Amino acid sequence: MTRGRFISFEGGEGAGKSTQARRLAQRLTALGHEVVLTREPGGSVGAEAIRDLLVNGPAERWSATTETLLMYAARRDHIERVIAPALARGAVVICDRFFDSTRAYQGAGGDAPQALIAALETHVVGAVIPDLTLIFDLPAPEGLARAVARGEGEARFEAKGLAFHERLRAAFLGIAAAEPARCAVIDATADIDTVSERIWAVTEPRLGKAAS
Amino acid sequence: MTRGRFISFEGGEGAGKSTQARRLAQRLTALGHEVVLTREPGGSVGAEAIRDLLVNGPAERWSATTETLLMYAARRDHIERVIAPALARGAVVICDRFFDSTRAYQGAGGDAPQALIAALETHVVGAVIPDLTLIFDLPAPEGLARAVARGEGEARFEAKGLAFHERLRAAFLGIAAAEPARCAVIDATADIDTVSERIWAVTEPRLGKAAS
Repeated sequence: MTRGRFISFEGGEGAGKSTQARRLAQRLTALGHEVVLTREPGGSVGAEAIRDLLVNGPAERWSATTETLLMYAARRDHIERVIAPALARGAVVICDRFFDSTRAYQGAGGDAPQALIAALETHVVGAVIPDLTLIFDLPAPEGLARAVARGEGEARFEAKGLAFHERLRAAFLGIAAAEPARCAVIDATADIDTVSERIWAVTEPRLGKAAS
Repeated sequence: MTRGRFISFEGGEGAGKSTQARRLAQRLTALGHEVVLTREPGGSVGAEAIRDLLVNGPAERWSATTETLLMYAARRDHIERVIAPALARGAVVICDRFFDSTRAYQGAGGDAPQALIAALETHVVGAVIPDLTLIFDLPAPEGLARAVARGEGEARFEAKGLAFHERLRAAFLGIAAAEPARCAVIDATADIDTVSERIWAVTEPRLGKAAS
């Protein structure tokens, strides 16, 4: 079976993940790759319906454990309907957030049990693990300031506070340290073009036998 | 901490669970118990929103694994917001379907992995296990005929077929055989009053120190 490449973009808010994911998609497309640019939570019809439950309503609508289960329901649908079929036909899948965000936001940032998250990774994600995860790193106050300037989700940021975002950052760096073969930390304080080149420097060698 | 009693009603379609759950609630209320009569999927504001995703749309909208995760997201919210607080204050909680329905419908009837379901029971349900589970048993053709006559979910029954409902029945009887201390099989072929008396005969001795 031909298998494509699966690249996830991770990190806190305001780090420029979405912009850089689009840039990488354009670059790979220009080189002749089939690229599927997607995001979580969401990315499939069913998962987008679940996303509506997750992003709307008051901040305390769900506990971290319930949120984890909703995230994984969306993730399973996204894997079955979009990611796995794309990888099977040899595409490069670029996903803006994947399972590391659950570890960080609901696990380290919330109080969802680590054992639950680990069991879900084993039984729900299975073998559909990213070949490369780019972890966008930025001091928490800078990321928050950027996100607020962008006008997205301001109320939630203020509600969660800086300590929450510091825990997120530590969690993402911890994941990168624990899984160096899968993860690359990207210093997101640099300008957009510099970040793009750093991303290309770690991505290009991984493309290997991806469809082209 | 005072703890109430948790009673779940389980079984296939058309077995009269909802009618009997209401009757038992009335009887216990008349005896002075605080009774919380609820159902799954649903039973809390958040869980009812998730229920909408589960019961609407085409039969193949979700895979059995995604359905399991949505069921457990709803279950977790229901436990946190309704069931656990009610038990903590000493109420009798009567729930029309609980985790055995996931074992039967998505596990035995679908293809959701047993290991996933077991992990969710451990990490999501935890200690909130029913003190008594009444398993309504009925030959599958009879249950289907009753449900069709009632005009509920006919299309889904026909789509699933008799073999599916036979697997459900076997799964519920298997649960009862494996956990005799928790489960009592109720022969649902009898008339309504006879079934009510059978339910009372197994419930009354279990009330023990429930609030009264």
